[in-house]
Amino acid sequence: MIKTQSNIESIKANLDKPIVLVGLMGAGKTTVGRILADMLGWPFYDSDDEIVRTAGKSISAIFEEEGEPAFRELERITIRGLLKNGRSVIATGGGSISVSETADMILENSVCLWIDASVPVLVERTAGSDRPLLKHGDPEEVLTTLLEKRRSAYMQAHLHILDDNLTPDDMATRILMQICEYLFEHNAIEDEERHIPQALCMTVSLFDRSYPIFIGANLLNDIDVWLSHEFHGRKAFIITDYNVREAVTDRFQAAISPYMKSVAVMELPPGEKTKSFDRFQVVVEWMIENGIKRDSLVFAVGGGVIGDLTGFAASSVLRGVEFIQVPTTLLSMVDSSVGGKTGINSKFGKNMIGTFYQPRAVVIDLETLDTLPQREWLAGYAEIVKTALLGDADFFYWLEINADKILEKTPVTVMRAIEKSCHMKAEIVAQDEHEENGLRARLNLGHTFGHAFENLSGYGSTLLHGEAVAVGLVLAARLSQRIGNLSEKDVLRITEHLQKMGLKTEIRDIELPEGTTVSEIIDLMRKDKKSNQDGMVFIVMTRIGDSELAYNIPEDLVKEIIIESM
Amino acid sequence: MIKTQSNIESIKANLDKPIVLVGLMGAGKTTVGRILADMLGWPFYDSDDEIVRTAGKSISAIFEEEGEPAFRELERITIRGLLKNGRSVIATGGGSISVSETADMILENSVCLWIDASVPVLVERTAGSDRPLLKHGDPEEVLTTLLEKRRSAYMQAHLHILDDNLTPDDMATRILMQICEYLFEHNAIEDEERHIPQALCMTVSLFDRSYPIFIGANLLNDIDVWLSHEFHGRKAFIITDYNVREAVTDRFQAAISPYMKSVAVMELPPGEKTKSFDRFQVVVEWMIENGIKRDSLVFAVGGGVIGDLTGFAASSVLRGVEFIQVPTTLLSMVDSSVGGKTGINSKFGKNMIGTFYQPRAVVIDLETLDTLPQREWLAGYAEIVKTALLGDADFFYWLEINADKILEKTPVTVMRAIEKSCHMKAEIVAQDEHEENGLRARLNLGHTFGHAFENLSGYGSTLLHGEAVAVGLVLAARLSQRIGNLSEKDVLRITEHLQKMGLKTEIRDIELPEGTTVSEIIDLMRKDKKSNQDGMVFIVMTRIGDSELAYNIPEDLVKEIIIESM
Repeated sequence: MIKTQSNIESIKANLDKPIVLVGLMGAGKTTVGRILADMLGWPFYDSDDEIVRTAGKSISAIFEEEGEPAFRELERITIRGLLKNGRSVIATGGGSISVSETADMILENSVCLWIDASVPVLVERTAGSDRPLLKHGDPEEVLTTLLEKRRSAYMQAHLHILDDNLTPDDMATRILMQICEYLFEHNAIEDEERHIPQALCMTVSLFDRSYPIFIGANLLNDIDVWLSHEFHGRKAFIITDYNVREAVTDRFQAAISPYMKSVAVMELPPGEKTKSFDRFQVVVEWMIENGIKRDSLVFAVGGGVIGDLTGFAASSVLRGVEFIQVPTTLLSMVDSSVGGKTGINSKFGKNMIGTFYQPRAVVIDLETLDTLPQREWLAGYAEIVKTALLGDADFFYWLEINADKILEKTPVTVMRAIEKSCHMKAEIVAQDEHEENGLRARLNLGHTFGHAFENLSGYGSTLLHGEAVAVGLVLAARLSQRIGNLSEKDVLRITEHLQKMGLKTEIRDIELPEGTTVSEIIDLMRKDKKSNQDGMVFIVMTRIGDSELAYNIPEDLVKEIIIESM
Repeated sequence: MIKTQSNIESIKANLDKPIVLVGLMGAGKTTVGRILADMLGWPFYDSDDEIVRTAGKSISAIFEEEGEPAFRELERITIRGLLKNGRSVIATGGGSISVSETADMILENSVCLWIDASVPVLVERTAGSDRPLLKHGDPEEVLTTLLEKRRSAYMQAHLHILDDNLTPDDMATRILMQICEYLFEHNAIEDEERHIPQALCMTVSLFDRSYPIFIGANLLNDIDVWLSHEFHGRKAFIITDYNVREAVTDRFQAAISPYMKSVAVMELPPGEKTKSFDRFQVVVEWMIENGIKRDSLVFAVGGGVIGDLTGFAASSVLRGVEFIQVPTTLLSMVDSSVGGKTGINSKFGKNMIGTFYQPRAVVIDLETLDTLPQREWLAGYAEIVKTALLGDADFFYWLEINADKILEKTPVTVMRAIEKSCHMKAEIVAQDEHEENGLRARLNLGHTFGHAFENLSGYGSTLLHGEAVAVGLVLAARLSQRIGNLSEKDVLRITEHLQKMGLKTEIRDIELPEGTTVSEIIDLMRKDKKSNQDGMVFIVMTRIGDSELAYNIPEDLVKEIIIESM
């Protein structure tokens, strides 16, 4: 509960607006709101109660006698009044934010939280109540239709809080973590030395596939902070690798065991070669042999290799069993564990086989980084730089000025870099889950080059994924410069930052197999998953912090850039 | 075009109501409606035009001067008048069916068609128009929100017609096929000898994963009837087996080639053993080696084995490439090709590994059945009986009285049996895509027993899937009887029908390996995918034509039933 306390302090020190709760009936806005207000020592208001007091009659009576528009106007005025109270927690009626004037007012003057419980949960909670909207018809149908109608209104809220059938106390704890993440994200935490939140949470918003990402110290021991009750008592299957087994997985297994019916663990060798058809088969058959059921829960504890392979296995064993990502490398924390890309490698290229399959949660325990080898740490950092370059100039600037703190691994700086990367990735995935509209493809900045290098070096320890990406970023920057998007100075800024952090930036430095030719590299790039039948597709920066897909890059230009770096 | 002509005749002979088109702006209701009216020789009406004529001013003017409620009332009265005209085609405004009085009236007095084009298609089509609702905001956003709001209203329509960016003429052809399917489904085709439709179409309604099922004679030569323009010019990958290669695939390859950029074909050995990890790897690596791209198109031409394996490969190569099911066995036509279950077998059980991945279309060419061995034909028929038993008593009765015609393979009777089975399956899948709420699990009636027998017999030609299911159905019927759901007479009816058709109905007749024990069978049943951590789950009939999941079946009872049949 130390985490909760530090989060409360951080919010009290850094938030000076009301917290407004929106969501469907049954979401528990009032119950949770009261607990939250209590924790923060702030007053609590329920807008419906205030309306009843002002009008001198019940909500139903207002609806019946004066009609819905009159009620909505009364609601708007009441909420306007409540928002003036400053620090407080305000629960609103389920339809308030559907009215655009009310929505604008709430969004401008508060931190607005959408409490999003699934329809089955809402049905259970509202059973037996006499809510006017549920009087006619099947509650499940009514609530589903209502959610469909209001989803876009609720999605306006600053924070999307998932209620996986949590207890009110657990919901309040989750809300504290999400508000802290929001404050971090908006650079609103002023005193970084004193009021540092210890655990953050954010939501990847994907309709009924939405899930939370938790970031914090020692989360793998604090199971209660993130494991929903709905997962308790299930059979657990943990996939991990030799490298993390002793440092992380044993401890995690001990901590999670009391919550599960049983826990089976499979260890795999570390390294990219594990992402093979053979290992996929071994893992899946092991799960089946050990009696996996549709209601079992799979954990991927390790780096990107473990996460990708486990995700693919979880997505295809019994046609899909739920899984939780527990990334233990910087690379997997900021990149592969979020977004539902699973996969194994083909002999013709990396990640050629896999699925889109979202985890039910991502749990990032920052302490697992303590035992991460420096080289892997750096390789992961390359993906953070990539994320900044493709979509957020301020973030790249922040990385530049905080380079020393990051090199020293100052906890709060590392936490913020991870939070920022996950947040950007979560937003991109929410808008383009299946890489269809070009947005998500941008996350492959530097990867068309990088994948070719990895392939040539045999996916071994000669060249780590992140190391290949670092060189790929520099080449992508040069490509962007040659087509007129970046200045030479920009390219230099990027190269220098990567070098300062200790990453290699040229093909000649990464020791590809002797005799590697440009054509070999180009051939491999042509097999990239992004390429369509018309040719290679690149991600180019339009400036530092923005990027796009480019379809008509002349092959000669690409060759030139490769040769210069060889 | 012979197909279109016979469909027109069938509709003219059997439909005596207006056809009403609903759907969003840009769906092409007026354009397509006119073509359709022309084909049928019926008058065409556009409700908006009629309203403008009556009111003497434009729709925009009515909205502005009198408000939306007044317009909706005018619309209701106008449509009421139009519905009295009998045989005709009526295009309505996009919001008409959102008003419940108008909806009730339309649904009672017409065949109502929802023309469902995707938002990107609608955006393209409405670009440059001055529709009032599109004047403010981003058209894509406006249309997406509108579709979300109205989806439940549109889903009330009798028919859901997908517009995969078809030309108006192709849309009219598709509509004719879907109306014929509707008439078939409602037993409304009176003169089965004279006015037989030649091609049917129905939609599996799954939001943005919806797809059409085509049923007809010689469809594999009539590519234009079903291949949308959006698929033209892509790279095609056909997976098939030795058995159908000569009889079907060569012909299909020749017919489809002019439409595709290239066509690659892979032949696999027939039989359940092909659904293995090894074959999965071979197929996927072959696709990659042959330059498959995200915009390629995969065809599964064969029975359930080919469909399941190909679907799994298509779902996981490059994390998902679109595919079309071309089932060539009765079993795959009525069961495995519809609904998106893909998979391979584990050494511990059947279909233990796979994904839910919907095809873009299912194309059932009835002529491919001509070369199907009788034994496989019968095995497929078992799944038709299963479908009737689990959900439609009338259908089972129809099968009983048409047994001779089915045995003689009278084309229209076979077509109707396939249509009916696909339709039921499509409806179940639409309500429970991922087998979560118990509805889809009912399709496993007889399968908990059946899978165990198949496993014991080694998935070879000793025992076909459908043959195992036939015995499973009888045992499931006996189980249902013992727990008080069915009468002995019901059980006899089921057993006798299966026997009459030539199917075996007892374990002792299917030659399991010598020395097979009850415990072995029970052990295998316990590994069934449906079972959860609390034990085995069965599907039982509550009566002929209805079924449910049963969780608390005593193991001794199951043993007893097995022993009696051994």
